[in-house]
Amino acid sequence: MSGMDERGVEAGRRERRRIREGGFVGPTAGLAPGNVQANLVILPQALAHDFLRFAQANPKPCPVLAVSEPGDPRLPGLGEDLDIRTDLPRYRVWRRGELIDEPTELRDFWRDDLVSFALGCSFSFETALVEDGIELRHITLGTNVPMYRTNLPCAAAGPFHGPLVVSMRPLKPADAIRAVQITSRFPSVHGAPVHLGLPAAIGIEDIAKPDYGDAVPVHADELPVFWACGATAQLAALEAKLPLLITHHKAHMVLTDLPIPGAREERT
Amino acid sequence: MSGMDERGVEAGRRERRRIREGGFVGPTAGLAPGNVQANLVILPQALAHDFLRFAQANPKPCPVLAVSEPGDPRLPGLGEDLDIRTDLPRYRVWRRGELIDEPTELRDFWRDDLVSFALGCSFSFETALVEDGIELRHITLGTNVPMYRTNLPCAAAGPFHGPLVVSMRPLKPADAIRAVQITSRFPSVHGAPVHLGLPAAIGIEDIAKPDYGDAVPVHADELPVFWACGATAQLAALEAKLPLLITHHKAHMVLTDLPIPGAREERT
Repeated sequence: MSGMDERGVEAGRRERRRIREGGFVGPTAGLAPGNVQANLVILPQALAHDFLRFAQANPKPCPVLAVSEPGDPRLPGLGEDLDIRTDLPRYRVWRRGELIDEPTELRDFWRDDLVSFALGCSFSFETALVEDGIELRHITLGTNVPMYRTNLPCAAAGPFHGPLVVSMRPLKPADAIRAVQITSRFPSVHGAPVHLGLPAAIGIEDIAKPDYGDAVPVHADELPVFWACGATAQLAALEAKLPLLITHHKAHMVLTDLPIPGAREERT
Repeated sequence: MSGMDERGVEAGRRERRRIREGGFVGPTAGLAPGNVQANLVILPQALAHDFLRFAQANPKPCPVLAVSEPGDPRLPGLGEDLDIRTDLPRYRVWRRGELIDEPTELRDFWRDDLVSFALGCSFSFETALVEDGIELRHITLGTNVPMYRTNLPCAAAGPFHGPLVVSMRPLKPADAIRAVQITSRFPSVHGAPVHLGLPAAIGIEDIAKPDYGDAVPVHADELPVFWACGATAQLAALEAKLPLLITHHKAHMVLTDLPIPGAREERT
């Protein structure tokens, strides 16, 4: 019933309703696969301007898709009926950098001064890569993409600072070149890779030991290809030890109505 | 006097006149640097159709910029006054695959059945890379770009067949990604790289021993990046052991009036 051919409002609305009503619990990968998904960061209004400055200064890891009004749980630019308090399958709530809860809705935590940020997520460009016939190892294995803290510092803004976090996909050289071409056309979801082939050059000591997500094998005829990752924003927010921070639970993303431009449609 | 800011007809016409009148002898790299340069293959009309089919079937190494009328030494699409018999600083003349002369003009070899092919050359995309601030090792060293025969076969047409020949430029990973983006915008001069990072995967045993051109060092923080090379067409024509084949002498190219689109102008 769902599938690549169905994109946009109908699929987004249907899947969000399922989640809201408790009919779907779990990672959102593959849900309404033609639609853009997003990372979520919610924090108090007093910190929102600094966080937005951080995102603007670091657009590759932190592409801003939407910012809410203070206290308003809606993000109408991403879905007319979207309610950020109920429409993700699971959240994480942090106080001063400590995880205090992993709720399935935010009723108990909502405040009139909270601002929601939706940031682009690599699920979108992965759809375009897969549609182009490129194998993505973590999808083949059914695991989370491996992520690494690099030695590349982000531009700081107010209390927000930290290293660039990257996700890694092993690709054959010709596929790596094709992947640069395809993902260059998706600047709102991390764009082109930031690095490939030489992990140590960006401070990654052991490719088999990701800092987040799951390790995947890199075969002898493949290069590790690294993209800026939305986890960068979460890490910076976490390390700022804010009085209150709410994020999506890992791989439990904001599901939008925005259609992903297909690799074929986008190809020039 | 010449320079990046001067592009097009005036620079092309002036430099071709200098060459025609014997005022310039040597490789054309850096001559009218804002203008497209081209590889030259001249062969008898009886073989021209097969050669054009070969080029069309292998567009990455053999991008066709212009084909002359039989016996007509002009290529007006590349320069109104261009005379292919006199406007290159040096040529090579081959009979049945044997080099028989390296003249500075073709008066003694011209025939009424000769057809000239101008094929795109990497000098053009190199200008765009350098304008973007990317260092190209062979230019820094003042040597010819290293070229390698690969184990990737071209599509055959009539007597024309052979391996893909590639040129190699060592680049830091971030520059390699940028170079993929820039050269993807130049499909008429080889386009995006065909390979990077793993020379053995395309049959290159020793990166320090190119088959043509000069070796350049690849530093520990660099990847070798490989582009399809116009030498592919010359090699296929040579190995067909034609009764008569005329080519440009290495790095002594056809100088056209066509302006190279700047990397900045092309950037999206």
